[in-house]
Amino acid sequence: MKKQVFSWGAGTADGNGSMKEILGGKGAGLAEMSLAGIPLPPGFTVSTEVCTIYFENGNKVPQEIEDQMEVALRTLEERTGKKLGSATDPLLLSVRSGAKFSMPGMMNTILNLGMNDVTVKVLSAKSNNPRFANDCYRRFLQMFGEVALDIHMEKFNHIFDAMKAKRKVKLDTDLNAEDLALIIEDYKKLVKKETGKEFPQDPHVQLKMSRDAVFRSWWNDKAAYYRKMEKIPDEIGTAANVQAMVFGNLGETSATGVGFTRDPATGENVFYGEFLINAQGEDVVAGIRTPSPIAELNKAMPAVYKQLREITNSLEKHYRDMQDFEFTVEDNTLYMLQTRNGKRTGPAALRLAVEMAKEGLITKQEAIMRVAPAQLDQLLHPVFDAASLKTLKMLSTGIAASPGAAVGRCYFSAEDVVAASAKSPVILVRKETTPNDIAGMDAAKGILTAIGGKSSHAAVVARGMGRPCIVGAGEIRIDEHKKLFTCAGSTVKEGDWISIDGTTGNVYLGQAKTNEADPTRGEFAEFMSWADEFRGKFGVRANADIPHDAKVARKFGAEGIGLCRTEHMFFAEDRLPHVVAMILAENVKDRKKCLQKLLTMQRSDFAGLFKAMDGFPVVIRTLDPPLHEFLPKREHLMVDVTKLPYATAKEKKDMAASYGCAVGELKKKLPDLLKRVEDLHEFNPMLGHRGCRLGITYPEITEMQARAIFEAVAQVAKKGVKVIPEVMIPLVGSVKELAHQKAIVKAIAEEVLGKAGLKDQHYMIGTMIEIPRAAITADEIATEADFFSFGTNDLTQTTMGLSRDDYTKFSKEYENLKIFAADPFGVLDQGGVGKLVEMAVKLGRSTKPDLEVGICGEHGGEPSSVEFCYRIGMDYVSCSPYRVPIARLAAAQAALVGLKGEANRTA
Amino acid sequence: MKKQVFSWGAGTADGNGSMKEILGGKGAGLAEMSLAGIPLPPGFTVSTEVCTIYFENGNKVPQEIEDQMEVALRTLEERTGKKLGSATDPLLLSVRSGAKFSMPGMMNTILNLGMNDVTVKVLSAKSNNPRFANDCYRRFLQMFGEVALDIHMEKFNHIFDAMKAKRKVKLDTDLNAEDLALIIEDYKKLVKKETGKEFPQDPHVQLKMSRDAVFRSWWNDKAAYYRKMEKIPDEIGTAANVQAMVFGNLGETSATGVGFTRDPATGENVFYGEFLINAQGEDVVAGIRTPSPIAELNKAMPAVYKQLREITNSLEKHYRDMQDFEFTVEDNTLYMLQTRNGKRTGPAALRLAVEMAKEGLITKQEAIMRVAPAQLDQLLHPVFDAASLKTLKMLSTGIAASPGAAVGRCYFSAEDVVAASAKSPVILVRKETTPNDIAGMDAAKGILTAIGGKSSHAAVVARGMGRPCIVGAGEIRIDEHKKLFTCAGSTVKEGDWISIDGTTGNVYLGQAKTNEADPTRGEFAEFMSWADEFRGKFGVRANADIPHDAKVARKFGAEGIGLCRTEHMFFAEDRLPHVVAMILAENVKDRKKCLQKLLTMQRSDFAGLFKAMDGFPVVIRTLDPPLHEFLPKREHLMVDVTKLPYATAKEKKDMAASYGCAVGELKKKLPDLLKRVEDLHEFNPMLGHRGCRLGITYPEITEMQARAIFEAVAQVAKKGVKVIPEVMIPLVGSVKELAHQKAIVKAIAEEVLGKAGLKDQHYMIGTMIEIPRAAITADEIATEADFFSFGTNDLTQTTMGLSRDDYTKFSKEYENLKIFAADPFGVLDQGGVGKLVEMAVKLGRSTKPDLEVGICGEHGGEPSSVEFCYRIGMDYVSCSPYRVPIARLAAAQAALVGLKGEANRTA
Repeated sequence: MKKQVFSWGAGTADGNGSMKEILGGKGAGLAEMSLAGIPLPPGFTVSTEVCTIYFENGNKVPQEIEDQMEVALRTLEERTGKKLGSATDPLLLSVRSGAKFSMPGMMNTILNLGMNDVTVKVLSAKSNNPRFANDCYRRFLQMFGEVALDIHMEKFNHIFDAMKAKRKVKLDTDLNAEDLALIIEDYKKLVKKETGKEFPQDPHVQLKMSRDAVFRSWWNDKAAYYRKMEKIPDEIGTAANVQAMVFGNLGETSATGVGFTRDPATGENVFYGEFLINAQGEDVVAGIRTPSPIAELNKAMPAVYKQLREITNSLEKHYRDMQDFEFTVEDNTLYMLQTRNGKRTGPAALRLAVEMAKEGLITKQEAIMRVAPAQLDQLLHPVFDAASLKTLKMLSTGIAASPGAAVGRCYFSAEDVVAASAKSPVILVRKETTPNDIAGMDAAKGILTAIGGKSSHAAVVARGMGRPCIVGAGEIRIDEHKKLFTCAGSTVKEGDWISIDGTTGNVYLGQAKTNEADPTRGEFAEFMSWADEFRGKFGVRANADIPHDAKVARKFGAEGIGLCRTEHMFFAEDRLPHVVAMILAENVKDRKKCLQKLLTMQRSDFAGLFKAMDGFPVVIRTLDPPLHEFLPKREHLMVDVTKLPYATAKEKKDMAASYGCAVGELKKKLPDLLKRVEDLHEFNPMLGHRGCRLGITYPEITEMQARAIFEAVAQVAKKGVKVIPEVMIPLVGSVKELAHQKAIVKAIAEEVLGKAGLKDQHYMIGTMIEIPRAAITADEIATEADFFSFGTNDLTQTTMGLSRDDYTKFSKEYENLKIFAADPFGVLDQGGVGKLVEMAVKLGRSTKPDLEVGICGEHGGEPSSVEFCYRIGMDYVSCSPYRVPIARLAAAQAALVGLKGEANRTA
Repeated sequence: MKKQVFSWGAGTADGNGSMKEILGGKGAGLAEMSLAGIPLPPGFTVSTEVCTIYFENGNKVPQEIEDQMEVALRTLEERTGKKLGSATDPLLLSVRSGAKFSMPGMMNTILNLGMNDVTVKVLSAKSNNPRFANDCYRRFLQMFGEVALDIHMEKFNHIFDAMKAKRKVKLDTDLNAEDLALIIEDYKKLVKKETGKEFPQDPHVQLKMSRDAVFRSWWNDKAAYYRKMEKIPDEIGTAANVQAMVFGNLGETSATGVGFTRDPATGENVFYGEFLINAQGEDVVAGIRTPSPIAELNKAMPAVYKQLREITNSLEKHYRDMQDFEFTVEDNTLYMLQTRNGKRTGPAALRLAVEMAKEGLITKQEAIMRVAPAQLDQLLHPVFDAASLKTLKMLSTGIAASPGAAVGRCYFSAEDVVAASAKSPVILVRKETTPNDIAGMDAAKGILTAIGGKSSHAAVVARGMGRPCIVGAGEIRIDEHKKLFTCAGSTVKEGDWISIDGTTGNVYLGQAKTNEADPTRGEFAEFMSWADEFRGKFGVRANADIPHDAKVARKFGAEGIGLCRTEHMFFAEDRLPHVVAMILAENVKDRKKCLQKLLTMQRSDFAGLFKAMDGFPVVIRTLDPPLHEFLPKREHLMVDVTKLPYATAKEKKDMAASYGCAVGELKKKLPDLLKRVEDLHEFNPMLGHRGCRLGITYPEITEMQARAIFEAVAQVAKKGVKVIPEVMIPLVGSVKELAHQKAIVKAIAEEVLGKAGLKDQHYMIGTMIEIPRAAITADEIATEADFFSFGTNDLTQTTMGLSRDDYTKFSKEYENLKIFAADPFGVLDQGGVGKLVEMAVKLGRSTKPDLEVGICGEHGGEPSSVEFCYRIGMDYVSCSPYRVPIARLAAAQAALVGLKGEANRTA
């Protein structure tokens, strides 16, 4: 039988830190710590594979593994000198989950295992503290009852609260040993009533049941949701870690705490953490008692503090990363309970990486790998405008638990947040959060709690999600029932706007203005410059339609514009009337007149883009959307035509305003407009008369756009700007379409540049690959194309036969059933769409080895998709300006893990 | 320099019959005839390549080729003993087009070349017939003027008609030599006026100009249209055949004629043709004089007739096919001017093939190759119901020129026919047709002309198109201006219905009923049995939704049902209300109630199909269309909701009727319905919530359909019918979708068959491959699929990103620009969609070597697509019942030309 149970302790271990796969993160960490000579309670890990075997084996652990566990238990008993269930020196155990990837708070833990009617008495006698012994027992009964026996928490709380009421006390600690003994009896009765069986007194039975309950918690709702959110596979399972209990609640010489070797919110190199005297671990993270800052431990227990600093320093050096640790002091003896690489905010991840590289702890390459590209998002988003904050009332200052600025409407339950977040940005306001709030936290822009510290559930989860978060804002009084809170004389109701600053801890009433982040300075700029070093010649461009966006893109490091959608210019208020007139024109001559007006406007837009991108390429796509998108909607026109004969004067006036005509003209205008709209009506606009199909039926539109582009080129180039224009023809499915449009663009380009004396001005004409046929016939299309740019939004829609807008109707079911590995519109479907993309790159380069290839769909800013683009040999990705740094980092990481593609790249 | 001019005559030839590519059909035929010792006027062919060179060379023939032609001309002069332009014995020439593929009447011909002011006198003296000489000259002037000088025909006619008016005569032949001399002078003046130059008297100049004009006629409108219709490539060009003139118009001992070795309309083995005494060739085909049947030549010129029969018999044996020939008798000497394989109707093609095979002239294999699959169409369409004909007034009997029954509304011009044919079946009624009518003939269901014979333009073209046609119906008096005809006391106006029988020549007033063709008897059945012999194991199934269609399909030879669209059953009048109720159901329970009602109905439909297909497979597709297709249209509901408050009692009553409710309920029903319709509204229904996506969100629908299928299986199988059910899941894009639906179907199948004691009943569950992702991931999908069926309608739409319905908006431009090789919805786009199909077959079989693969898109009945499916190793095609024989023949032909695929086939 394969080894499935791994012991550790006393400076030895069966496993080691590299065995996360099989031991889980926690188990591997404990083994590694033990090997490193760190003082920790001994124990053993039942492997992640056993979790899978348990489910496959009909929720039962095979006997051979039970036997291995028996052996490990005997070793543990030897190491501690105690015995499970002993009437003289009983061993108490904790049983904790621990998967390969950290899933904080998502699965179950059972503490104080081994308590029963016998051991409670022994513990009472040995500690000389009957209240402590009874409290351990009742805690175990409650945890075991909830977790292993599926009895609802409320039922235990009801018994407990009834006793408090009976004794007329407020705090748990006000109940004495006798009260707790009564509660224990009631708890045991509850177990009997709910399960039909007596509470199992045998600790060996308790152990097996607890271990199995930990395995089962892999599939509880919040764990499954968290995995979905974090993209953790369902198949890997969790280990169960069985460890000797040590007690932080043995009195004033005992304590328990958690900490980080550096600040996980900001990355600052300060010792960071919290502790509670005379408490068990869950008291710290549960947020029920607000714990003390770790620095104060130096006063309370100076020797322990010194030892803790030494151990954690060596842990950070050992693991070469910031550590998140748990410790317990039992009667002045320090035990490390856990250490792991700490979760961190985006800003912290970046600062840690840069500083550790500078300290020489890690290499620059490692620093680059330490920041998940998506984490950069938090550094790129707006911060509060200082002037704007001055106009708002500050309500309170809490603990700054996760940095960043968030503005939203208040909601007081996870459900309400989820519902409201579809319509407006939302802030989740709670007394404290629990794992049940996870969906609400995900949907909220920011989180505000009244109690809890930097290690509370809210703080930990918010940092993981990159959500701004303030905890322990004790001045606010929340009435979750009435859905409001009061603070500093104000009453803030559900739906009211507040602004929270997770960097300062300040809470403001109202909507604060925000300023854009500045990515050109400080550690961020330094980090990105390292990333660019490793990225090599793989380029990152931005999708930008107007000069302002182009400037932002440059600031974020874009090396050109990968997609300018000219139709976005058409929708501008001063242009739309000309566009509409152009569409309604009854002949080519009239249409050309309208186009002439648009020409002037487009030319100046293009000139602005070229100036902003001096020295970098600008890809301009010719008109793409179907013409009816510029006109009123057919069904609204039909309704208005029906309504008109019965409309009141007021209604007519409104109608006239919306159609931009006089009331008297409505009678003729509406049916005329409807007729044209009917002409243009399409059953499937996505697959209709758009893209190059427009340019083919209305060549004068392509002509106008080509003229605007090259006149702008001439204008700007003459001023000394280096212009690199690339004209992109959309929705090509056949090389003949491209050839047709190319001929038009080329003729205009030669004419305009010739006249301007710029015959040597370089330009390219290429195409978007966004329908499957283009990918399949890319070898043919490449004969006419100077470049390809993959429009993976539309390519995903056509390849999957799935309209992005209509998918929302049934995406919930599809997500629940996991039909797709991820949302195909967010993450490139490498198994399907990606195969076509790869095929197209190969076919295209087989015809034209120096074909420039990029991507301009939204996937161009999604890290795993960027990695894919890098690997298959694309020359660049293009994404929204704010995602440019993310793409730069993702590309650098792809380069560092040595993905192929460099050989294929042409740029 | 490559040889580009090929001489023939006097029993020799530079080329031969196999050189159609370079000599064109006519040139190759003349060379072959000459080699066979057939008497024919000598001449030479300027090759098809020269046509291409001419256009590439700026509409000029290079000097080296001119030199070759000079040499050939000298040979020709030697062979005839005459000299071009000679003042003693002038040679006259014809110049005719002749491409690789026959394009009758589409390009230009020039006769009597060599006439000028000198030779007209010589000819007059030599023939002792000044009128004949002058007539030759004026004909040449007119033809040369029109064709080589682009002078409008009407201008010549005007001069000619003016002379007739002046002389007060009716017939051309009433003008005497002097009149013609005056006309010649006016013609020459016209040439001077129109071109600014004198008419070229030099016959060598005439020859070069005529040859070039023939080349240019390759690109005239009607030729280009014909090529498009017949799918002849534009690149191949035409040859120019220069041949010594012989004269059928030298008096009563001269004649000209055309004929076929067998009847091209019916295929009957009779000598068939027409001639005119004292006429030139174009008089016969122009339809101006009605010619005499060829049999009468035996009376007029018995020796010539005997020689003609001998020659044409030997020609048929030589070419091993029915011949279409032209001849001229010049002063009792017979010359063959041309021979070629004759065009024929579908029925004739089939009869010829069967009879020639039985005669031993050709093999059975050759017989199969002799019939174009599309020609079978003409044999599969309805014939008039005899009883129905008795109720109609017979207007006239004309010449039965192309068989078949046609019913339609009368229209009197090609333009009107084209316009009207969109709305209704149409018959084109004309005095006579010209090549300018070709689009109208194509759009018409049948053609009726008042004049002309079996070789007239109308007759020849109609047979080529397979359109029923009656010519020479002399009793009808057509007023094309007033758009009516009168006949037998009736006046038939534009838009009135008539019925024409191209097999009998009868014209009826009104709409005759038709009966279906019987494909199970006679030559047709025999021919198809040969085809099936060669087809091998490649199957042909039919798309059929109801038992009646299934029975028709069996009659036409379908070996199973390849696609049963269950939703077609949903649209039936008695079912739609249950379907609507099902969609409007607010919960699963109510929905299941409605489904229960549909279950009973579907079960009996399926039972009917299984019975009709005893022993053959039946592929049933689960529900495919989006649910909103079953509900009223959104925009109509919006209009009705707007209208309701203002509606009159009558309008309300109509509304209530159309929504199937009481007037009083409208106020609630309309907004409720609109709400549900809004819920279901989609931007791109083609890419929306349909196919398996419905079955996934509403598993109860799939359950119901599976139950209906397998309960029907059980019911019918118990009666001894051999049922082979194949359940097909539509619109699968990911293997997980298929697995989900398969699990549902399988569970129901096992349950129902188990209960019925039919555990061994075989069934398959497979999927439609109709979106690109399915093709790309076919290896994964095949792990769950027992079979694939390609839905090439949708696969074409998604692969090309092109909605079939919306394509009509710009298909005209696309056709004109030849963006696609053919209509991709009619002919499978092998270069794009086909590549995906081929990839999917390979990937699918790589996972599951015995995967059954077929096609059920409309391409399954299109010959070139069937050939493709055969070649890539599909097991079967499925098409509409009426196209089954076409597919059987196309498959047999693919097998006979030795296309690969047999090795891959599994069935």
